[in-house]
Amino acid sequence: MKSERYLILNLKSFTESFGSNSADIGRIAKGASEEYGVSVIVCPPAPWLSAVAETGAETYAQHCDPCGPGAFTGFTSPEMIKATGATGILMNHSEHKLKLHEVEFLVDSCRRIGLSATVCADTVNTVAAVSALGPHIVAIEPPELIGTGISVSSARPEIITRAIDAVRKINGSVPVIAGAGITGEQDVKRSVELGASGALVASAIVRSGSRRELIYRMASELL
Amino acid sequence: MKSERYLILNLKSFTESFGSNSADIGRIAKGASEEYGVSVIVCPPAPWLSAVAETGAETYAQHCDPCGPGAFTGFTSPEMIKATGATGILMNHSEHKLKLHEVEFLVDSCRRIGLSATVCADTVNTVAAVSALGPHIVAIEPPELIGTGISVSSARPEIITRAIDAVRKINGSVPVIAGAGITGEQDVKRSVELGASGALVASAIVRSGSRRELIYRMASELL
Amino acid sequence: MKSERYLILNLKSFTESFGSNSADIGRIAKGASEEYGVSVIVCPPAPWLSAVAETGAETYAQHCDPCGPGAFTGFTSPEMIKATGATGILMNHSEHKLKLHEVEFLVDSCRRIGLSATVCADTVNTVAAVSALGPHIVAIEPPELIGTGISVSSARPEIITRAIDAVRKINGSVPVIAGAGITGEQDVKRSVELGASGALVASAIVRSGSRRELIYRMASELL
Amino acid sequence: MKSERYLILNLKSFTESFGSNSADIGRIAKGASEEYGVSVIVCPPAPWLSAVAETGAETYAQHCDPCGPGAFTGFTSPEMIKATGATGILMNHSEHKLKLHEVEFLVDSCRRIGLSATVCADTVNTVAAVSALGPHIVAIEPPELIGTGISVSSARPEIITRAIDAVRKINGSVPVIAGAGITGEQDVKRSVELGASGALVASAIVRSGSRRELIYRMASELL
Repeated sequence: MKSERYLILNLKSFTESFGSNSADIGRIAKGASEEYGVSVIVCPPAPWLSAVAETGAETYAQHCDPCGPGAFTGFTSPEMIKATGATGILMNHSEHKLKLHEVEFLVDSCRRIGLSATVCADTVNTVAAVSALGPHIVAIEPPELIGTGISVSSARPEIITRAIDAVRKINGSVPVIAGAGITGEQDVKRSVELGASGALVASAIVRSGSRRELIYRMASELL
Repeated sequence: MKSERYLILNLKSFTESFGSNSADIGRIAKGASEEYGVSVIVCPPAPWLSAVAETGAETYAQHCDPCGPGAFTGFTSPEMIKATGATGILMNHSEHKLKLHEVEFLVDSCRRIGLSATVCADTVNTVAAVSALGPHIVAIEPPELIGTGISVSSARPEIITRAIDAVRKINGSVPVIAGAGITGEQDVKRSVELGASGALVASAIVRSGSRRELIYRMASELL
Repeated sequence: MKSERYLILNLKSFTESFGSNSADIGRIAKGASEEYGVSVIVCPPAPWLSAVAETGAETYAQHCDPCGPGAFTGFTSPEMIKATGATGILMNHSEHKLKLHEVEFLVDSCRRIGLSATVCADTVNTVAAVSALGPHIVAIEPPELIGTGISVSSARPEIITRAIDAVRKINGSVPVIAGAGITGEQDVKRSVELGASGALVASAIVRSGSRRELIYRMASELL
Repeated sequence: MKSERYLILNLKSFTESFGSNSADIGRIAKGASEEYGVSVIVCPPAPWLSAVAETGAETYAQHCDPCGPGAFTGFTSPEMIKATGATGILMNHSEHKLKLHEVEFLVDSCRRIGLSATVCADTVNTVAAVSALGPHIVAIEPPELIGTGISVSSARPEIITRAIDAVRKINGSVPVIAGAGITGEQDVKRSVELGASGALVASAIVRSGSRRELIYRMASELL
């Protein structure tokens, strides 16, 4: 049985995530997940959701449109994401923010159809706000650190602990993970020491020359 | 000294709110406010913010763009609203919803420059969420009742009490007012009996043939 | 060599388009395309772009975000669509409209990276406007007929001829296809008789119990 | 009778446009307009539309929402703008871009209720596109020059002449004005020499210590 620890790999829209790259990362994630008994989740671009899900990796969409199935041209609904074999949705990332009622719609849709809803927020107050909606996981990512290589856990540890405190008061059962600037296993380790249930990583993995090693080392520090 | 009771009049974009109508309602609101020692607040369309503020009525904008002053064409910032003489902003109305981080930006801007932030939400969970951002007032408006003449306080009283309970847990000091389908003083009275700190009214006032009487009767029931 | 006639199948977000359905329609489209020497193009939901492209069918995305590859979470760029094996983008559908400058960005991106840009518009004036941007195909779809089963070619033939005239004046080389309410081969035939270069079809195909027959009959009427 | 020459003053959201500033500029614009027999048009922030219109200056809104009057909270419709005494709308500015069908809706609304529609675009192709919608005036503003003090007429004269050519082919009767980086009367003069019907100016006027002199000198060069 897996512990409630999460390493979420956001592959964004990098060319390094296109084509077979997403599934390659999926296979590594699956291996690391089994090795350490933690959740290593891959968020590929929408066109490669099925390919990643078929590797057996836990697969989340990077975003979702707040609609259902039907006569909607060019939208991606929770039901569509579920039909790919994915098991969750990352939403409200600071690069793709949503209206408040859209987050609520998506969290409710996820609960109804059996997907996991991971909601991002980039301040302590908005982390508190989204935790009131009952998501499965909340991710705190100070946007000024995203892509910098300066990790939130070293540069702004207090934002992690304050976010965790805020969530505990409102909805104690929701795990909080930390992201932004996570480049090495020490950043993951530090996040967990601060009380987080894991980490959200993007460019460090996608652009690494040694993805496998890095994913395994990060996963090993979740425990 | 005024009690912490609020009657907010949302004049929307009805033609009956254009031109001198907004200031006419402003004068009535000021009178009712003084008569009963409560806040009767007028939210005119943006072009008539100054005209209403000049009547001495408490004046809120119906919406605000999440920006500051500067080289922005066709946007209305909190600073601009303050410069009209208005003292607050109604935001995230179900007809004009915002992204979560925009609500946070606007609530923070209001606090910084001395405006009152009234944040609308249309479910118990989103009321809880916005209360975590520290607004001055939260308004619950189930959108399916807006404009129906069937008041939230009679048709969905439990949504008011549950919203109040949710806010109490997260941010106990924030007053909750109720809106949607409020047409008469009995709806205001019932809202207050349910624990609300007031009511949000729109078409019933704007389209009434006896605005003065209706506003006064509603204000009198706030106590 | 194919004639410049197009049957574009917009699979929208119907559950009947999920999973293997999109590729099934892709195989039929490929067959009909070869049988009649016309372009029968399939627009699946984003998660099944690769699956359709692998059938050998001409594959267009239903929508595209106006961005490039990079650190963008949950967006679908032209480059990403090309990487799936798709060869074009349907854009500005009346269910998913774009800002004018976004249409320009996407048309320019398509030209640069070798994708076909089919731009929808729902009035004669907006058809004229988008033709000035140099798309590969323009599609006119009066939104009030979409999904009705009343075809544009029978109910509003003059909108097709006026759209074609408007495009001829501005950018004579751009083919115009017609959509909305197209349910049978007679609608396709009539569109071509009016001067259109083909048709855009959605629910009639997706929800048909005899997709193969219908697609073949429609394709046969393009000539 | 005025010539068909236009100087449009976009006051944006600068603090220097707040309060009595807008009307002060309105009075200057009215004087310059009468002195030279040209249109000097003031675009104040929405809250000061009435105050500017009352000076007798030609007054345009900086933006407009694509809706009509009614139960819309916090939107500004063409009808609302007309009710302020303003006579036109500047729209689709590069700082506040619209969807294509929204531009069409607004241009049509303006025609129907008797407002002037000035549509901005920032490339030759989008200038061509919007001219197909039948606006009263088209403004070309290369966004990379906005606010730089390097004028479009000196740095990119060919973009003005190409925009004029493009509009002539599609809708010969539409005047084209030029904006971006216009700081002095020589920039206005040069724009007119290139065939433009006037200029669109913003920060140079708003932030000038000698607004009156600058507006008069610019207006004088329109002839």
